[in-house]
Formats: sequence, structure tokens, C-alpha cells
Amino acid sequence: MNSDYTCPGFRFAAVAAAIRKADRLDLGLIACDEPATAAGVFTRNRVQAAPVVLDRQRLEAHGRCQAVLVNSGCANCCTGAAGMADAEVMTAAAAQSLGIAPHLALVASTGVIGEPLPMQRIQAAIPGLTQALSTQALPDLAAAIMTTDTVPKLARRQLRLGEQTLHIVGVAKGAGMIRPDMATMLCFVMTDVAASPATLQQLLSQGVERSFNRISIDGDTSTNDTLLLLASGKSGLQAEAPQVRPLFQRELDALLLDLARQVVRDGEGATKLVEIRVRGARSTADAQAIADTVAHSNLVKTALFGQDANWGRILAAAGRAGAELAPERLDLFFDDVRMVENGVGAGKAVEAKATAVLRQRELTITLDLKLGPGEAMMLTCDFSIDYVKINADYRS
Amino acid sequence: MNSDYTCPGFRFAAVAAAIRKADRLDLGLIACDEPATAAGVFTRNRVQAAPVVLDRQRLEAHGRCQAVLVNSGCANCCTGAAGMADAEVMTAAAAQSLGIAPHLALVASTGVIGEPLPMQRIQAAIPGLTQALSTQALPDLAAAIMTTDTVPKLARRQLRLGEQTLHIVGVAKGAGMIRPDMATMLCFVMTDVAASPATLQQLLSQGVERSFNRISIDGDTSTNDTLLLLASGKSGLQAEAPQVRPLFQRELDALLLDLARQVVRDGEGATKLVEIRVRGARSTADAQAIADTVAHSNLVKTALFGQDANWGRILAAAGRAGAELAPERLDLFFDDVRMVENGVGAGKAVEAKATAVLRQRELTITLDLKLGPGEAMMLTCDFSIDYVKINADYRS
Repeated sequence: MNSDYTCPGFRFAAVAAAIRKADRLDLGLIACDEPATAAGVFTRNRVQAAPVVLDRQRLEAHGRCQAVLVNSGCANCCTGAAGMADAEVMTAAAAQSLGIAPHLALVASTGVIGEPLPMQRIQAAIPGLTQALSTQALPDLAAAIMTTDTVPKLARRQLRLGEQTLHIVGVAKGAGMIRPDMATMLCFVMTDVAASPATLQQLLSQGVERSFNRISIDGDTSTNDTLLLLASGKSGLQAEAPQVRPLFQRELDALLLDLARQVVRDGEGATKLVEIRVRGARSTADAQAIADTVAHSNLVKTALFGQDANWGRILAAAGRAGAELAPERLDLFFDDVRMVENGVGAGKAVEAKATAVLRQRELTITLDLKLGPGEAMMLTCDFSIDYVKINADYRS
Repeated sequence: MNSDYTCPGFRFAAVAAAIRKADRLDLGLIACDEPATAAGVFTRNRVQAAPVVLDRQRLEAHGRCQAVLVNSGCANCCTGAAGMADAEVMTAAAAQSLGIAPHLALVASTGVIGEPLPMQRIQAAIPGLTQALSTQALPDLAAAIMTTDTVPKLARRQLRLGEQTLHIVGVAKGAGMIRPDMATMLCFVMTDVAASPATLQQLLSQGVERSFNRISIDGDTSTNDTLLLLASGKSGLQAEAPQVRPLFQRELDALLLDLARQVVRDGEGATKLVEIRVRGARSTADAQAIADTVAHSNLVKTALFGQDANWGRILAAAGRAGAELAPERLDLFFDDVRMVENGVGAGKAVEAKATAVLRQRELTITLDLKLGPGEAMMLTCDFSIDYVKINADYRS
């Protein structure tokens, strides 16, 4: 392994438990040497999977966590009372195998909605999983949580403070807005900072707002979205300390944004990563509404796939965002190419330059409304034939 | 011609003016023998095409109309002051050719955004257009307004009241950039009822709420949406009369819903027409929010294309609608097949029946929340590989 994805206080493992398919890693475990401070962000969908319900209850009650058991292949969602019982059994089995209190174990599931977990195979796999725990195995865990992801998603940051080093490592799969059916986005971040549950939750909520809440693949939201941040405290550095907190927040934000970008880049069928920037809006809320609407427009996203500088679709999407907008003042850029000035297209010569930008793997689209100070950003991807193929075929 | 799409007081024409492509009907004209009462519903997009701005002004000022000139191939949108001037020149040329006052002429355009109209070719075509006017030519007009539509869309209703007959005929176009809450696409409806502008507007607004505001193809909204209702009064029947109004409204609603269904059935790349019904919601607003979110979900729509009874995606979409929802009480039907009961799937045998329903060309998906009296309906289509192909290639 080239990269060091270790974090003091944590061990990881993954095994193949044949949850949906044979011979692939599909069951993972995060174990903490001591109970870690824990914070979480969960889906706001009214339909929530059993593991989401259970984790939320336990985090609210305890704010601490010593193990996270996670599976792909089955979301354990819309499974009724039996599904809740299965989630509890999973945490109890993991806790027993580790010799910790059951309420210190959490669980996350991702995969198809509406089918029961193969509990016998999961329970049979847990002892081997515990035995495989290693400080080095985070990449295995990243692989075990993949569903339609084409690459595992890992990130790490280190921060030196005098003699001490702070670590943050993380893995993610899917995206909050790809395939709710597959219970989309899971993200686990481990650090050795010391923090109270309340501080950790503040740090996480702020970081999510600037990263995972700014991405979209297809506008659908999952029933299983779960992002957990676990802090072992092994560094001896306290997150509440004035000399630590802003630096830690900066590194956490960077790590979350790194993972969020990896998720969009790997969007189902995506060929491009596109940053939508809105500036000059009357308010931040207006800027966000426009960035959000453009990032979700199927007509914008299919034009991006076609590498077509079809700026009319971008303006049309902006115009339906419900935000204040004066079309006759609006400028639009593809990277640095100003395709629209004061609401009117700049003509064929400029469009040729814009088309060259659209051939890139990554690009930025900027809308300047020239109305006020409001700014916002969204990360999105294009919308390809493969997206439809993947999602029309998924369960077969 | 098999069907009679005439309406007393109106003549129609269409010619090939080479606006974007040669040798296809792309310029149409509706002419009224006398000034007709007129009502309109227009896009609420903040980015509005020049013809929308002009028509709205003239309808508000006059409430009457004697001619509508309409072109496909170019939307005359995001074209600045020059585009506004072009729209006025189009109406002036049509008015001059017909010998009517310029303010009685309206204009509608559909096609690519951001390009100027070929005004010389349009002006050159207008005399021939006027000469071609015929009571029989509404089908030609329906063809002239098509863009990515694969079939022309026409509808007619007749209503006998004693000795008298009321006529309503209409045409529509639209296959992409279709979303409710706007006057979606272009639609022209002609009738020989007599009515004040205020009454006509009430009748139209009510009819639109029950038809075009309940359809979606891709969630994008046009900058050019225009629906005009013109009433010649030739029948001698007055819309305000108590024995006429409810019957006329019923027929108008039926005609608008007929056209709206034709639009969704011809959605870009669509292979299925799907009615989303929500009942048992806490309120009508909640029911509409859920119907709207399900009808727009790309994951639901790709599953429909794949003929996959992937009910988890439907529940996940319902859950993110922001409406009150108790997953453990929810039932879901494909036509009459209850696939989900109290939030839990009914199993493989029922799923086989549901899959058979999904193979149909038209089907209904019903969500019963069992929380209250709220009901709503949306018409949508599936989301296919061809949708992406059409929209990635559109301008080339």
C-alpha cells in the first residue's frame, strides 16, 4: 500500500459475506480501542432505513461509539419491525465479538431497498471480521461499502501542531443524491482529536454544509445516508482549544470536500465533474437556489454530456429557481470564457472557445447576476446514456 | 382529412419558411374573422422570451386578439432589445398582411434559445401564409409548431345546447423542457363561445390547473410557454350564462387534459405514459408535493423505462417531498396490484404481477398514505436512453 490511511486509536476490517453477490468484500467493521466521541449526519428523507433510526437514537443518547458494522448489497430499508430487529442483532453481534457494550456499536447498510438482510451469513462472518482487524485496512473497508461505485473513495489529512500530529482519515461511497435505491451515501471519518460530542457535531455539521450538501448527481436522496465522525482523542489535542479548532475545521472541511468531489466524479455514468458557481445574487439563499436548480437540470446535464455550450438551457434553469434574476444583466462563463454578457450570447467565435472548455473532464460554469453579494457553489456531473442504462438495469 | 378541426370564426395556415431547416412547415398563422376575446397563461420562468413579454403586455392592455403568428426552430429568447424588436416586427407584418390593427396580433416562438430569428425569411413568407388561410388547416398549424415532437397534437370537443353547437379545437406542442406550474409549451385553443376577457381567463386558468399544470416530462421549464384561448363568439352562446358555463368548463377541461396527455405521451424518448395518484395525504398540498416529487424522480423514471417494479425508489422519492408521511402505513399500487402494504413489500409473487403491469404502455401508480383526505394526480413518462441522446444532440 502506497498511502498511509491509519489513524491512532482505530482498526478496520472487511470480509466477503455473500450478502448479495459472492466473492466480493461486502461487510466491514470499524473498531476503536476505547469508546470514541461520535457525531453523525443522517438523511432527512421521511423514509429512513432501520440502521439510520437505530444510530440516530444511540448517538443522541450516548454521543459515543466504539464500533461501526457496515454492509453493502442490502439497505435494510422498508423492512418493518423485522428490519429494526436485524439492525439491533447486527450491533449486538459486533459488540459481543469485540467484548464491548452493545449500545456502543452502530450499524450502516447500503444496497437494495425492501429486501431482508441475510442475517445468518452476516452473523457467521462477524468473528472472522473481528479477527481481521488491522490499523492498515481502511482501503479494504472502502472497497466493502461500494455498490455502483467504480472506484473506492479514501481521503486523509494531517495537521502538525508543535510536537503533535493530528490525523483525519475518511472513506465514502455513493452520493447523497445518487440511487436512493442503493441507499446511497455512506461516509465514515476517523480522527484522533479529542472533543466533546457537541463540539464534534458542530464541526461535522459545518463541514457537511460546505461539502456533501453542495453536491448532486441526480437529485434523488437516499433513505440510508449516514455520515459518522469518530474521534479517538489519541492525539491529546483538544478540538475546543482556540489554537486547534479553526485548523481542525479547515482540515476536516478539506477532507469532506475531497471525498464529496470523489463521489461526484464517480457519479453513475458521469463523464464530467462540473462546478456551478453563482455570484452577484441578491442573497445567499437566491444564489443557492439558482446553483441548485442548474446543478439538477436534466437539460443542462444532458447538454454537458453532449459537450454542447447550450447556455440557453442554463439561463432557463436559473430562471425557474424562484430567485430574483434580471436576464438583461446576467453574465455566464464556461471557465474564463464569457459566453453570455448582459443576457445576450457572445456569438459563434466565443462559442467555439466555450465548446473547447466543455471538452474538458472538469470545468466551472459561473453565473454572475450582478444584483448583490450572494454567492453559492454546487458540484454536479453530466447526465449520460450510461446513467439511464445503469438505473434501468439495476436490479436485474 | 378524417376529422373536422374547424371552429366557426377561425382560419389557419402554415408554410415552410426555412427558419431552421428547409422543407418543413415552421411558420403558422391563426386568423380570426373578427377580433376574438383572448386569454393567456404564460411561463413563470424569470427568463422570458420576447414573444411572451409582448403577448402578455397586449393581452393585459386589450384582452382581444385577431391573429397569432407562430414559428418553430427559434425561440427568440435571450436575444435582447433586437429580439423584442423582431417580435414586434412579426406582429406588424402579420397585421399588415391581414389588414388589422397591429395590437390585435400576437406572436409565439419555439426552438433554440439565444439565436436571432431569420427575419428576412419570415417576412418574405407572410404574404403566402395569409393567402393559404383556410378553415380546414389546423392540422397544418399543429405540424408547423413541432420541434422534437414526433407527432402533431390536436384535440376537439363539441357541445350541443338546444339548437346550438359550441366548438372547441386546440393544438399543442412540447416534448421536452416540460414541467407543471407553468403554461408548459405552446398551446392554442379556439372556440366559438362568446365571453368577456375576464371570464375567458378564469375558465382557462381553471382548466390549466387541472391539465397542463399536472404534467411533467423532465422537470425543466421553458422560457417560451404560452397557452392562448381565443373565443370568436360565433356560436351566439355566452360563457357567462349559467346553463353554458359549467358545461363549457367541463369540455374545455377535457380538451386541455387530452392535449396534456398527448404531450406527455410524446415526451422526448418516452415509452410509457404514467399517472401518479396520491391519496390519503394529510392535505392536498402534501399530496401534490409527493405526486410532483415522484413524477420528477430520475430514479423512478429510469426504473419505469427498465420495466422494473422498483418500489423502493418510489417510496424514497415520496419521503423527500417534504410532506407528512408515515412509512409504516403506506400502501403502493401498480394499477390494482398492491405491491407495498403498510410500508413493507408484498413479496416475489406480487412483484411478478406488478412487473406485468409495468410492461404496459400506460399505467397508474397509486400511493395511499392513510393519513387524511388529501389527493393529487400527476402525469409523467419514463426516462429513456433516447431522452439523453435527443438532448445531448439537440443543437447539432
